[in-house]
Amino acid sequence: MKVSIVGGSGFTGGELLRILACHPQVEFKTVTSRRYVGEYVHRVHPNLRGILDIQFTNPSLSKIAEESDVVFLCTPAGVSVNMVPQLLETGVKVIDLSPDFRLKRAEDYERWYGWRHPRPDLLEKAVYGLPELHRDEIRNADLVACPGCMSTAAILAMAPLFKSGLVESDRVVVDVMIGSSGAGAKPSLASIHAERYGVIRPYKPVGHRHTGEIEQELSILSGEEVRVAFSAHAVNIVRGILAVCHCFTRKPVSVRDLWKLYRGFYRGEPFIRLVRDVKGIFRYPDPKPIVGSNFCDVGFEPDPYTGRVVALAAIDNLVKGAVGNAVQSLNLMYGLDEKTGLMYPGIHPV
Amino acid sequence: MKVSIVGGSGFTGGELLRILACHPQVEFKTVTSRRYVGEYVHRVHPNLRGILDIQFTNPSLSKIAEESDVVFLCTPAGVSVNMVPQLLETGVKVIDLSPDFRLKRAEDYERWYGWRHPRPDLLEKAVYGLPELHRDEIRNADLVACPGCMSTAAILAMAPLFKSGLVESDRVVVDVMIGSSGAGAKPSLASIHAERYGVIRPYKPVGHRHTGEIEQELSILSGEEVRVAFSAHAVNIVRGILAVCHCFTRKPVSVRDLWKLYRGFYRGEPFIRLVRDVKGIFRYPDPKPIVGSNFCDVGFEPDPYTGRVVALAAIDNLVKGAVGNAVQSLNLMYGLDEKTGLMYPGIHPV
Amino acid sequence: MKVSIVGGSGFTGGELLRILACHPQVEFKTVTSRRYVGEYVHRVHPNLRGILDIQFTNPSLSKIAEESDVVFLCTPAGVSVNMVPQLLETGVKVIDLSPDFRLKRAEDYERWYGWRHPRPDLLEKAVYGLPELHRDEIRNADLVACPGCMSTAAILAMAPLFKSGLVESDRVVVDVMIGSSGAGAKPSLASIHAERYGVIRPYKPVGHRHTGEIEQELSILSGEEVRVAFSAHAVNIVRGILAVCHCFTRKPVSVRDLWKLYRGFYRGEPFIRLVRDVKGIFRYPDPKPIVGSNFCDVGFEPDPYTGRVVALAAIDNLVKGAVGNAVQSLNLMYGLDEKTGLMYPGIHPV
Amino acid sequence: MKVSIVGGSGFTGGELLRILACHPQVEFKTVTSRRYVGEYVHRVHPNLRGILDIQFTNPSLSKIAEESDVVFLCTPAGVSVNMVPQLLETGVKVIDLSPDFRLKRAEDYERWYGWRHPRPDLLEKAVYGLPELHRDEIRNADLVACPGCMSTAAILAMAPLFKSGLVESDRVVVDVMIGSSGAGAKPSLASIHAERYGVIRPYKPVGHRHTGEIEQELSILSGEEVRVAFSAHAVNIVRGILAVCHCFTRKPVSVRDLWKLYRGFYRGEPFIRLVRDVKGIFRYPDPKPIVGSNFCDVGFEPDPYTGRVVALAAIDNLVKGAVGNAVQSLNLMYGLDEKTGLMYPGIHPV
Repeated sequence: MKVSIVGGSGFTGGELLRILACHPQVEFKTVTSRRYVGEYVHRVHPNLRGILDIQFTNPSLSKIAEESDVVFLCTPAGVSVNMVPQLLETGVKVIDLSPDFRLKRAEDYERWYGWRHPRPDLLEKAVYGLPELHRDEIRNADLVACPGCMSTAAILAMAPLFKSGLVESDRVVVDVMIGSSGAGAKPSLASIHAERYGVIRPYKPVGHRHTGEIEQELSILSGEEVRVAFSAHAVNIVRGILAVCHCFTRKPVSVRDLWKLYRGFYRGEPFIRLVRDVKGIFRYPDPKPIVGSNFCDVGFEPDPYTGRVVALAAIDNLVKGAVGNAVQSLNLMYGLDEKTGLMYPGIHPV
Repeated sequence: MKVSIVGGSGFTGGELLRILACHPQVEFKTVTSRRYVGEYVHRVHPNLRGILDIQFTNPSLSKIAEESDVVFLCTPAGVSVNMVPQLLETGVKVIDLSPDFRLKRAEDYERWYGWRHPRPDLLEKAVYGLPELHRDEIRNADLVACPGCMSTAAILAMAPLFKSGLVESDRVVVDVMIGSSGAGAKPSLASIHAERYGVIRPYKPVGHRHTGEIEQELSILSGEEVRVAFSAHAVNIVRGILAVCHCFTRKPVSVRDLWKLYRGFYRGEPFIRLVRDVKGIFRYPDPKPIVGSNFCDVGFEPDPYTGRVVALAAIDNLVKGAVGNAVQSLNLMYGLDEKTGLMYPGIHPV
Repeated sequence: MKVSIVGGSGFTGGELLRILACHPQVEFKTVTSRRYVGEYVHRVHPNLRGILDIQFTNPSLSKIAEESDVVFLCTPAGVSVNMVPQLLETGVKVIDLSPDFRLKRAEDYERWYGWRHPRPDLLEKAVYGLPELHRDEIRNADLVACPGCMSTAAILAMAPLFKSGLVESDRVVVDVMIGSSGAGAKPSLASIHAERYGVIRPYKPVGHRHTGEIEQELSILSGEEVRVAFSAHAVNIVRGILAVCHCFTRKPVSVRDLWKLYRGFYRGEPFIRLVRDVKGIFRYPDPKPIVGSNFCDVGFEPDPYTGRVVALAAIDNLVKGAVGNAVQSLNLMYGLDEKTGLMYPGIHPV
Repeated sequence: MKVSIVGGSGFTGGELLRILACHPQVEFKTVTSRRYVGEYVHRVHPNLRGILDIQFTNPSLSKIAEESDVVFLCTPAGVSVNMVPQLLETGVKVIDLSPDFRLKRAEDYERWYGWRHPRPDLLEKAVYGLPELHRDEIRNADLVACPGCMSTAAILAMAPLFKSGLVESDRVVVDVMIGSSGAGAKPSLASIHAERYGVIRPYKPVGHRHTGEIEQELSILSGEEVRVAFSAHAVNIVRGILAVCHCFTRKPVSVRDLWKLYRGFYRGEPFIRLVRDVKGIFRYPDPKPIVGSNFCDVGFEPDPYTGRVVALAAIDNLVKGAVGNAVQSLNLMYGLDEKTGLMYPGIHPV
């Protein structure tokens, strides 16, 4: 299929190029960047040297629509909302990696993003691009809104618990740790190596935008209004997310119960690996051995002492946290094997 | 005063040597290590080369007691409990950096450590060596039990909240992130650089031993039985702890309320810094700029949306998380200025 | 083809499993580990969870020979020399990742390894497995001795200079920086994260074993006896090597001359990328954007002031520095496209 | 003494504040920053919170001169040259941490910096602020030009070799590895954590400005014109430098010869530690255990095979590589013990 990317110079754009470069069905058309028009992509994404022979351009949206079957939008919040209507009108399929169409309720954009969504009608049309929860809808979608990176990890960690009704919905506590690539490629005083290296920086202890997505999806699963106390922290890695989710159970639960629950929920999922081992170095999910891959490692531990289950998920924030969901969605939308171009192991140790 | 250290070759022992080397009142007598008898301390602690001209030895406890005014015990769990009685009998003061005398109730050792404490009578005698909470008792103590590193951070983050009765006592959630020095100097498959670098490893999602201390101290402060849902995670730094403590409030609380509460509680404390800034790179506590110093940076953020306060504390796990409390206690026990040998800034950036 | 791996639990073994897992022609037979007999490979190599369903075993060499077309040896120095004769006798092809057959002259083993090589006859038979220099020989080899990781980088950086006779052969200075995975997976006091993190450790300033290989290959290229002043340093990454090679030229040389020389020498090489850019972040070879890939980035800079060329090469020490050469050799030995299973970009940023 | 700092918001300024904050004889007057006028220093240097209660200002140079005994200049290249004349005229002593007065020959500024030095007369007056080589001159200086960070390491590694005439002067090869704080606090695409983390980046393989200083000082020591083939590489730490210096000897030399030479040359030096150990983890100089301290660890290894000595030096680039030499000079200029405010161990492990 003919693929274009709007916003190809950021980390998400680069990762999309990396993964689609090895996808057997993809033919690149346009890769845009206002800043780097005319530059070869490998000057911005040095890993692509010798792999892709493409230059950034910046044509009109109609030009892009004309030549593409599907357009990926790797734009900042608030930008894609202005592009999507025109693209959809021309019959192009759109996979949006920005947050502009993730939330179903327009009022949630006011709460979490502080702006009024201009096209609430399209929010209904958009499908939340998490295949583990919305596979069939994605197959038929014209507009897929890929989940946020932290949301992906948090939702996949807790989905079985909320689907089963096992846990209380009003006091879920989630701490997420994330690497520096999650902050994007823009330089700032806070992002330079000397100031960012070695931190454990609570950069968003309350009010993180991804909270809205997490609550939305868990509420759908549980049938109740879920409230999540979410905090986000930056740690000294480039790639990777660990979501630590503290859920309080409505009745006592054993390790065996949890195995059964998680195994049942994720049966057949190609990119979910359940990790709760009694030996070895990696006994719970940890993003380290996932680097570069599309896996989401999910684990859990009951804590009878506090009546809690600690649900854990680890992902590569640029793959399963962004581009991986997008490419899984692409495969589903075009009737391909969902794993196409995505089934390889992480790099370990790295 | 004449000082000896039992267990001088580990990270805690090395850090104690580093800090006491610059303490104007300290004269070193014995520094023990069974493994390194006869070696100069700088062969194990390379930063002490040119600073300390001391060799490890391994004399009998009675020999150590005879020549020392005060003995620091940097021994693993379950070891110091066999040394402390003999040392106290000879009139030596003991500062124990191990967990053997931190808990007041003998049954708590069975719950958290899985062994029966042989000398419950001494648990009463021991003072929990956190000067911010037990300054006067430490002044008169013969046996100080220094807090655990994670406990120090968690307790100092939440102490004002529990003292004031502002928060609920039955559903406190605490995630702590810690560097590799917290695991000690013993090699293992899990601790080598290639396997430990770059992780976000949930190494103890439930059942961590420090929970007992935290509950003990918060319960004293609040007058209620506090229950803490605690999880510990290893991150890619060597030194540093961030404690993220989610407390649910009994009534709405503003930023201004919290400033007042924390300012009041910590007024005059030399090593507590309140960090909640609206500008700059370091707006909340972060262990990075604390490296090598005895400060505990404490911060907070109310979250009206979830009825939560996120209380934060950052420390250097080897200083304020271990040796710093020990040296503050030493100063207090000998009537010195509590800050002696401890008042210098962290190294930044590093 | 039917493939077995002897020594599958180390980092080289794990990387070989990772790469061969995606190789379309490979069928795994035996993967040995004495330590982990019966364990699934993903317990040791956590990135392979969900990818490979193989257990470590430890059968006899004759059993391995019987069922395999080709055997990879990922054994420590001095081990494979005792296995290779038996394997070759049974007609199995052998790709040895250890140093036991890299040097052509038996006396060089005494100099660099301190032992007398028991089978000098086989040294002639073995082919040095660097396809860029020995492609045709590899095609017909029964025994391939894969180059050392540092040797690969140093040789590929300087090969065009020595082939052309442009540089002096008696005073080459090479500094190599390497990540911690180069030291293997065995725990030691020096390898734990707390002691290894953040170092720039000159662990082998003189006498490094790889010197012999580098001199051997450069001498073949130049027709003169080359002498290399080599030093190796450990730095704070897990994967990656940078070789910095200072060569003194026999006559003045321009950037243009060097471009011509390197372009000519490496024309058509699929895994060599020439990197000397005037813009962008990555203007010279740097292992960072190579992580996980089989590329060797080669660069150069003339220094008229000192009559020097600085030749640079960056690789992933576990891929192009070990397993990548092995798999390229496998492809060549079996008449496959040399790039099979190896042509994908590095992970960036990571 | 009354001290002012021009350029207090960079990493060098911050480190100077950190160290002088604990110096018993220093009274701060002005600390300038154009960008941060009115801000408390701890907002830019978060480690100084609770330590220094000073705000950045930006008064006229004459105002600064009036109130100060000594002024430290932490300005970029080419700035202090315009300030020094006025300051000296008012009788203030100046310690310049910029490169503007390091080189003795005006023409060397054209070669290495590309500009014509406006005040060659002052170059004679300036003293190169490396106490190990110019202690007596510093005592009587009005203008001290502190050495570059890499120069400090390279010169101190090789000074004994060149003083003794043991090594050839025309083909010295030096590779220096440095952390990110050496690049300053200014954000750029190349300096963000995601792009800078994990590199081994040969950022200046030829033509580095520090070459001039190194050649100048080694030439003075040897009495011959020394030529240095210098290359600089960025590695994945924040603080620290390792200089690896390959010198070729005029006659064979033993370990014992080198011990004698280095011991003799550095006898009594308070901040030089000779490191060449046969046991332990840190057998050669390595910046890791030096972090935060003023030590320069110096080591060596003869290589009879190549007729080479590898001379090594490790420093903290912000301390002994910048501020430490400045404060040693301050102490010397004012007749204080040279170690005042500087004699404490590095932080280890970190």
